[in-house]
Amino acid sequence: MTNMEDSSVKFLSKVFDLLNDGDVFDSSDKCDSEKSMIDFRHPSELKKLIPFSLTDNIETQHDDDEIEKLCRDVIKFSVKTNNRNCHNQLFGGLNFYGLGAEWMTSALNTSQYTYEMAPVFTLIEEAVVNMSLQLFGFKNGDGILCPGGSTSNMYGIHTARQSKYPETRLKGNPEGLVIFTSEDAHYSILKGATFLGIGTKNLIAVKTNESGQMDVDDLEMKINDSIKNNLKPFLVNATCGTTVLGAFDDLNKIADVCERYNLWLHVDACLGGSAIFSRKHKHLLNGCERANSISWNPHKTMGVPLQCSLFMINQKGILHECNSSSATYLFQQDKFYDTSYDTGDKSLSCGRKVDAFKFWIMFKKHGMIGFEAMIDNAFEKASYFADQVKSREGFELVVPIQYTSICFYYVPEYMRKQEQRDETWWKGMSKVTAFIKEQMVMNGNLMLGYSPLASKNLGNFFRMVVTCQPLATYESMDFVLNEIEKIARKFEFHDHF
Amino acid sequence: MTNMEDSSVKFLSKVFDLLNDGDVFDSSDKCDSEKSMIDFRHPSELKKLIPFSLTDNIETQHDDDEIEKLCRDVIKFSVKTNNRNCHNQLFGGLNFYGLGAEWMTSALNTSQYTYEMAPVFTLIEEAVVNMSLQLFGFKNGDGILCPGGSTSNMYGIHTARQSKYPETRLKGNPEGLVIFTSEDAHYSILKGATFLGIGTKNLIAVKTNESGQMDVDDLEMKINDSIKNNLKPFLVNATCGTTVLGAFDDLNKIADVCERYNLWLHVDACLGGSAIFSRKHKHLLNGCERANSISWNPHKTMGVPLQCSLFMINQKGILHECNSSSATYLFQQDKFYDTSYDTGDKSLSCGRKVDAFKFWIMFKKHGMIGFEAMIDNAFEKASYFADQVKSREGFELVVPIQYTSICFYYVPEYMRKQEQRDETWWKGMSKVTAFIKEQMVMNGNLMLGYSPLASKNLGNFFRMVVTCQPLATYESMDFVLNEIEKIARKFEFHDHF
Repeated sequence: MTNMEDSSVKFLSKVFDLLNDGDVFDSSDKCDSEKSMIDFRHPSELKKLIPFSLTDNIETQHDDDEIEKLCRDVIKFSVKTNNRNCHNQLFGGLNFYGLGAEWMTSALNTSQYTYEMAPVFTLIEEAVVNMSLQLFGFKNGDGILCPGGSTSNMYGIHTARQSKYPETRLKGNPEGLVIFTSEDAHYSILKGATFLGIGTKNLIAVKTNESGQMDVDDLEMKINDSIKNNLKPFLVNATCGTTVLGAFDDLNKIADVCERYNLWLHVDACLGGSAIFSRKHKHLLNGCERANSISWNPHKTMGVPLQCSLFMINQKGILHECNSSSATYLFQQDKFYDTSYDTGDKSLSCGRKVDAFKFWIMFKKHGMIGFEAMIDNAFEKASYFADQVKSREGFELVVPIQYTSICFYYVPEYMRKQEQRDETWWKGMSKVTAFIKEQMVMNGNLMLGYSPLASKNLGNFFRMVVTCQPLATYESMDFVLNEIEKIARKFEFHDHF
Repeated sequence: MTNMEDSSVKFLSKVFDLLNDGDVFDSSDKCDSEKSMIDFRHPSELKKLIPFSLTDNIETQHDDDEIEKLCRDVIKFSVKTNNRNCHNQLFGGLNFYGLGAEWMTSALNTSQYTYEMAPVFTLIEEAVVNMSLQLFGFKNGDGILCPGGSTSNMYGIHTARQSKYPETRLKGNPEGLVIFTSEDAHYSILKGATFLGIGTKNLIAVKTNESGQMDVDDLEMKINDSIKNNLKPFLVNATCGTTVLGAFDDLNKIADVCERYNLWLHVDACLGGSAIFSRKHKHLLNGCERANSISWNPHKTMGVPLQCSLFMINQKGILHECNSSSATYLFQQDKFYDTSYDTGDKSLSCGRKVDAFKFWIMFKKHGMIGFEAMIDNAFEKASYFADQVKSREGFELVVPIQYTSICFYYVPEYMRKQEQRDETWWKGMSKVTAFIKEQMVMNGNLMLGYSPLASKNLGNFFRMVVTCQPLATYESMDFVLNEIEKIARKFEFHDHF
C-alpha cells in the first residue's frame, strides 16, 4: 500500500471529489438548471480566466492548492458531456463502470503490444474481439482495437489493398486503385484515400437516395465505368448509420455487387453497429456477415468512454500480412511463453492504448440483456422525439428517422407561410438554425449539432442524437423542443433575419 | 452534485482504493518484495483464474461485488508498471499529477476536434504545442497530439509527401517515391512506408556506425544512387534515441545533406526528445531546429501517462493542406465563435482523445526546473549503472551509454574464458539472456527487456531503461545487477546451456 503522505498520491485521491464537485457525474433528471452543461467563453475571454501558457514564467512550480484551483477551472469551463442534454455529437454521456475501468487502465499504464506487458488486457481484448465477431457473424475472423473510427476505416482500406494487391507492401500502390463510397459517407474515407496514397480523385462518390442510402445501381454503373477506363476498383465502403442522417446502406445488395466484381466490402458501422445488440433493430445490419471488414465504435451510442473502436475482419492472418515488422526487440521468438499472444505485430502502431477493458467491464455488468434494453430505449425515445417533431407546430423532420439520431428544422412563424422554398428561404433557415444553436450554448443547458447537407442541397438543420447514457426519458426529449420554442419566443425572428 | 446512492457512481468512488489496495501506486524504495511487480501466469492458466469470455453466459449480469472482484483480479495479474524495477519498455513509471489529469480527461469525455466541445482542452493543447515548438526551436511552427509515436512518424511522411509532391493528395502517390532511414531506426517508418502506399522496397536502409548512429556518407551515396535510378527521394528520417541502443543521429550533418538535395528532414525524437529539458544534455538534439518535422513522446522518459505523443512541424498551414476535409457537419463556417480554434480539420482522425491536459498539469506542477532535475537524474543514474556494468565481473556493455538506456550482457563464468566469440558462443549468450529474463519475470520483482541486434550481428542482450518516474536511485540501479547475479548463482549455467 501507498504512502499517503506523498503529495502526488494525495492529489490523485482527490480527483473523484473535484469531478463530483464540478457536477461532471451529474446526469439527474432536472433538465433546466442554468449553465449546467457549459459556461461558454470565447477563446480570448477564456485565456484571461485560465493561465494556459507554458512559455511565460517557465520556472514557476505550482503548489498543490494552485494545481487544485487549475483543475477546478478546467472542469468548470469544460463541456459536461455527461449531462443529459448534451446531444451535440454522436457520443453522449458515458457509462460509469466503463469510466472506472478506464481509470484503472490508465493507472496500470501499459501498452497492448505484448502479453508480457499486458497479460490480462491481452486476454480481455481477445474476449471483446471474439464477442464482437460473433455478434456480427464473422465465423473465422480477427480484430483489433484502434484509436478511433477513422483509423479503423483506414485499416479497412489497408487490408483490402493487401488482399487484392499484395505486392503493394513491397512496391507501393499500383496505378489506378479506385475506392467507392457514398456521397453521405464519413469523411475518414476521404482522409484515408489521401493518407494511404490513393488520391482523392480515385475515391468515387456514389449517389444516395433521399434518405441518404447508397444508390446501388449508381454504384454498379460507376464500377463498370472504372473498369472500362482500365482502373483498378478494389473496395466498396458501405455505411451503417451515416454521420448526419443516420442512414443504413443495403448491405445485401451491395455485397451482391461486390461478389460480382470481386471487390472488398468494408462496412463503416462506427455509428450504427450498436444496433446489433437489439433483436428488434439489428435487421438494420442485415448482410453485415457478408462483409470482409467492419468498423464499429462502441464509444458512440453505447457510452463506452472515448476511445473504443473495433476493426473486425472476416479472415485470419491478413492483419499480420499488412503490418508485421517482426521487430526483434519486442517480439522475440525465444520468449518463454506462447508468443502468438503478442498482438502488437498485427497493429499499425507500436505502443497501443488499452481500450478493451472498459467495454469488457460494461458487458460483465450489464450483459447482453442490459445492452439490448439500453439500445431499445434509445430507439424508442428517438422515435418519440421524431413523433413530437411531426406533431409540434413549426418543427419539421428533414427525413424520416432511421437510427437514434433525428434531423429536423425549426421553422420560425414568418417563414412557415412562404410557399416557395427558394434560395433566400434556405439561407434564412440556415441563419435561424445557427442562431438558435448559439443561444442554446449561451444559455448553457442544451447542446445540439447542426449541419447543412450538400448532397441534398439542404441548408442548416439540427441533428438530435440519442445515446444509451444517461438513459433518455420522454421528459428529456420534450425538453429539447421546449427549449427551442422558448428561444424562438424570446427572439422575434422576422426582426433579425 | 451527484446522487451517491447511484451504484455506478459508488463504484467509481471506489476505484482509487481498489488500485491502492493492489499496490498500483506503490513505488517505494523497498526493492525486493516478492511478486511485487508481476504475478506471471501463462495464458492457459490465467484463463482459468479470470472468466474472460463474453460469449459464454451472455445473459449474466454481474452485481457490484462481482464486478469489484473482477477488477481486483485484473489488477492483481497485471504488470505494476509503476514499480521502480519495471525497466522493460521505453516508458516506465508514471507521474501521479499526470494520472490525475488523465482521470479528469476521461471523466470529461470529450473529443479534441472543435472548440465548442473542448474549449479548455483546445487552449491547453495549443499551450503544450507552443511550449514544445519553442523548446525545439521551431519559430513559426504548428503541431498536434497523436495517438502514439508511430502515428506521429507517419504524419512526418505524410506532410513531407504533401510538401514535395502536393499533387499526391489528388492523384495518389507518384511512382518512385523514396524514403531514407537508418537500419537502427524504429519500425514505424517501415509500417508507414507500407500504410502510406510507398512500399518497403522504397524505404532505403542507411548503414549505422558501431554506436548505432546513421552513417551520413552512406546516406549521401544512397541518395545519389536513387537519383541516378530516376527515383524520387523526398524524405530522410533521422533518429534521436534509437529504440535499442539509444543512439542520436548527427542532425546537423544530416540537415546539410537534406538541404543539398532538397529533402524533407523528419526527426524521430520519440525517445530522445525529452533531453531537451536538460541544459546539460540537450546538445544531443543539436540541429533539431533545422528539421522540417519532429516526433516526440513525453509518455516515454518523462512518465506522462500513455498516450502522449507530439508531432511538430516547422511550417504553418501544411497540416490543413494534408488533412482538411471541411466536413460541414462539424466545421461549420457560420459558427458564432472564431472557428480557427476548431483544430479537428488538421488532424488525420475525426474524434481525437485529449492527450495534452496531463502533460500540461505536470508542467504547471514541476516547471522547467523540475523537469530538468528529473531528466538529469535519469541520465546520472543511467551513467552510474553503466559504470557498475563496467566494473562488475561478468557484466559487459554492448556499446557505451548514449541516453538513459543501457545495453549490456551478463556473461556466465564458463563463457568468460572462451576467447573466440564464435557463433556457438553467441547462441549460448542469447539463451542465457532469455533464460535470465524468464527467471526475473517468474520471481516477479524485476523486468528488463532484451533484444538481439541484426544490424550488428549481435545475439540477445539486456536493455535497461531508466526513466523519470519513480525517481531512480543508486540503490534501485544496484538492485538490477544484484538480481541478475542472484539468478546466475542459483543456476549453474554450464549445466543448462
